[in-house]
Amino acid sequence: MSDTGDHSFSWKIPTGDNLKRQVCDDCGWIHYENPKIVVGAVCTWGDKILLCKRAIDPRLGYWTIPAGFLEENESPEHGAAREADEEAMAKIEIDALLGIYTIPRISQVQLMYRAKLVSDNVAPGIESLEVGLYAWDEIPWSDLAFPTVTWALEHFREAGDRIDFAPFTNPPGMILD
Amino acid sequence: MSDTGDHSFSWKIPTGDNLKRQVCDDCGWIHYENPKIVVGAVCTWGDKILLCKRAIDPRLGYWTIPAGFLEENESPEHGAAREADEEAMAKIEIDALLGIYTIPRISQVQLMYRAKLVSDNVAPGIESLEVGLYAWDEIPWSDLAFPTVTWALEHFREAGDRIDFAPFTNPPGMILD
Repeated sequence: MSDTGDHSFSWKIPTGDNLKRQVCDDCGWIHYENPKIVVGAVCTWGDKILLCKRAIDPRLGYWTIPAGFLEENESPEHGAAREADEEAMAKIEIDALLGIYTIPRISQVQLMYRAKLVSDNVAPGIESLEVGLYAWDEIPWSDLAFPTVTWALEHFREAGDRIDFAPFTNPPGMILD
Repeated sequence: MSDTGDHSFSWKIPTGDNLKRQVCDDCGWIHYENPKIVVGAVCTWGDKILLCKRAIDPRLGYWTIPAGFLEENESPEHGAAREADEEAMAKIEIDALLGIYTIPRISQVQLMYRAKLVSDNVAPGIESLEVGLYAWDEIPWSDLAFPTVTWALEHFREAGDRIDFAPFTNPPGMILD
């Protein structure tokens, strides 16, 4: 698509396809809608975990690990580090893929990493009301923003100091679709 | 978006964002473009590997493992199984996440699984000219369709019979961006 052009779309099944897609009425360009990737990280400083209180909807005022949508031309690891920087002004080093969670209902695949903070110098970015480093028993479990935040934290604990492990997936029965 | 409506879009930076997005001129709906997920599987029957000769562009006539774009409301595992069915009429059972490959240049994240065929009953689907089960030393290495197919096959070999392992990523130096 041109940087300035306007397009109008209709829903059609393209030749050789089996699902309806948005097709440009003028040029025939097919706009495929596909699931989006969320990237995030459980980031630690010693035995403390970085949490951010959300300043934006959805779930404003609830706590999350730094996470957000992967952008075009970005690797998942880079995206997770960017989110930590944007939400908590935190510099991190990723050391493992902790979990891959799927939420078919909203067409999301979440890649949650495990990372170490490079320093304990963290501060709220524009999307956070407050950020902090919390010990395991200080985590506000009932005020976490999303189920996948809870899963990532639990899987972080379960992974312990293992390095070479299959990433966790949705807990049994938690299909969320 | 309505199922029949037409929209015209312009590129603008939405309030609170920092990247240009396509914004509907009529209703203000923001169309976020994000990386797409490709799902596929190295599928085996005994010590033989399922390969498909592509009947479609890009790389028509070259060989691939079954793989394609994840669709809306679909889990990655379901998508990989659907692709095996569509391209090789193959029924599979996934047993591990083999690799996560990133190609920032074309905004793709590829999730490649390891799977066992439920039977050796395979046949070309509409996107394949030919399908077959090949021993390791019969793989047409110089006629593989994409670098990530080569990587998945090599990582399949390297994983051996391990179950609990961190998924492989792009080989060193292979950023492809």
